[in-house]
Amino acid sequence: MGDYTTVSVPSSKLLFRQLFEKESSTNTYLLADVTHPQKPALLVDPVDKTADRDISIIKELGLTLIYAINTHVHADHVTGTGVIKNKVPEVKSIISKASNSKADLFVEHGDKIHFGNLFLEVRATPGHTLGCVTYVTGDGPDQPQPRMAFTGDALLIRGCGRTDFQGGSSLQLYNSVHSQIFTLPKDTFVYPAHDYKGFTVSTVGEEMLFNPRLTKDEDTFKSIMENLNLPYPKMIDVAVPANMVCGLQDVTKKSCEPLAT
Amino acid sequence: MGDYTTVSVPSSKLLFRQLFEKESSTNTYLLADVTHPQKPALLVDPVDKTADRDISIIKELGLTLIYAINTHVHADHVTGTGVIKNKVPEVKSIISKASNSKADLFVEHGDKIHFGNLFLEVRATPGHTLGCVTYVTGDGPDQPQPRMAFTGDALLIRGCGRTDFQGGSSLQLYNSVHSQIFTLPKDTFVYPAHDYKGFTVSTVGEEMLFNPRLTKDEDTFKSIMENLNLPYPKMIDVAVPANMVCGLQDVTKKSCEPLAT
Repeated sequence: MGDYTTVSVPSSKLLFRQLFEKESSTNTYLLADVTHPQKPALLVDPVDKTADRDISIIKELGLTLIYAINTHVHADHVTGTGVIKNKVPEVKSIISKASNSKADLFVEHGDKIHFGNLFLEVRATPGHTLGCVTYVTGDGPDQPQPRMAFTGDALLIRGCGRTDFQGGSSLQLYNSVHSQIFTLPKDTFVYPAHDYKGFTVSTVGEEMLFNPRLTKDEDTFKSIMENLNLPYPKMIDVAVPANMVCGLQDVTKKSCEPLAT
Repeated sequence: MGDYTTVSVPSSKLLFRQLFEKESSTNTYLLADVTHPQKPALLVDPVDKTADRDISIIKELGLTLIYAINTHVHADHVTGTGVIKNKVPEVKSIISKASNSKADLFVEHGDKIHFGNLFLEVRATPGHTLGCVTYVTGDGPDQPQPRMAFTGDALLIRGCGRTDFQGGSSLQLYNSVHSQIFTLPKDTFVYPAHDYKGFTVSTVGEEMLFNPRLTKDEDTFKSIMENLNLPYPKMIDVAVPANMVCGLQDVTKKSCEPLAT
């Protein structure tokens, strides 16, 4: 069955926690370099309703939260970035430049986000939305092995995000996953933004074999995505305007700057 | 902050998956030795409603399910053991002898449950129920490091199971956790049967510092547990009779035998 079934995990430098928000079935990920004196930490896809939980565990573990990062402008929940920045003002919000939304720092394909001696690599994976990115742990001897990919809604476990809103495109999503995620080592862990069946992790190798949509050819995939007949996203009219300003809808606009990488 | 913050994970022999059942907020754990030719696997605390999901992932990953194990007689959901045994008859169900319930194999404190070259050690941790046990990955050079403790309802993340039903005793639970779980290495991962706040894992060191109940002295703990004022468990009258026969309530009684260890 190949090497995707093996599990070890990341380097002992990395503190890693998967956190779940039940109502929107959203995964938030906490990563920190615990061998660095400041124990710098980041959150991927925090949710407003569970922001206090996230801040609390970060405090208990003695970490310093430096970044609150989104994989894209979510349509199903409000990001926790705004709540977090109100309570921990030194935290910088990060989103892709292509998302056209507000944040403290913007990233583009190929950028690196450093926290201590660890880093995430930014891979553009549009298709669910125009500005979707996948964050992948670094490639190098001091970085976690196997690698870990935070895929947002581009690649879900045995599924993928819908492509009928927010500049979505099924062909673009197909190409993003095949060129940017399925080219990673097969044992790379896949950590998506959502799961509705109770799965917590998959691997690139597993999804290349068993994803019921993305194992198909491009035309079949397009046809599957066009015939999902999904209801209008119930949170979209609240969530998207809030997330376009990174959850800071009630706060004075902040200036924006590119991320130095 | 000590060594409980470091994360590596288990040996590369171990395939490990955490699976979640949303309605009862139950964690099911899949463990397998993927370096053994048969890839023998076991499930800890499967749930009836998600048994098909568990069987499906086991099949996809090419594993051979040999054991379906319960930490105790659950009161909040029906175990998946019965459904699994109906669909995969060669699977043996395991529960503690002290639970006084039915199963194919019974375990006692100190027993080992082998799957390939890996094993779980059985630790009696009564108090939530009379027959509660914690399963801990083996201590040895070829076993996963850090160790992993599947604590059932004895120790939850920043909490613990109630002690007012099924032969529960707050003093017994206090002693169980302190003598059998808090004596493990601080970096041991704590994987409980439930979580209601979206946490997926903790460590022994973390719970020794931050568990709001079990960091207290014995008398304070007893007082906390006596004043929880929890409602009558809504599933108990369905779940306990079903779980006393390991979810085989609709199937002819099976003979029982002790586990050879």
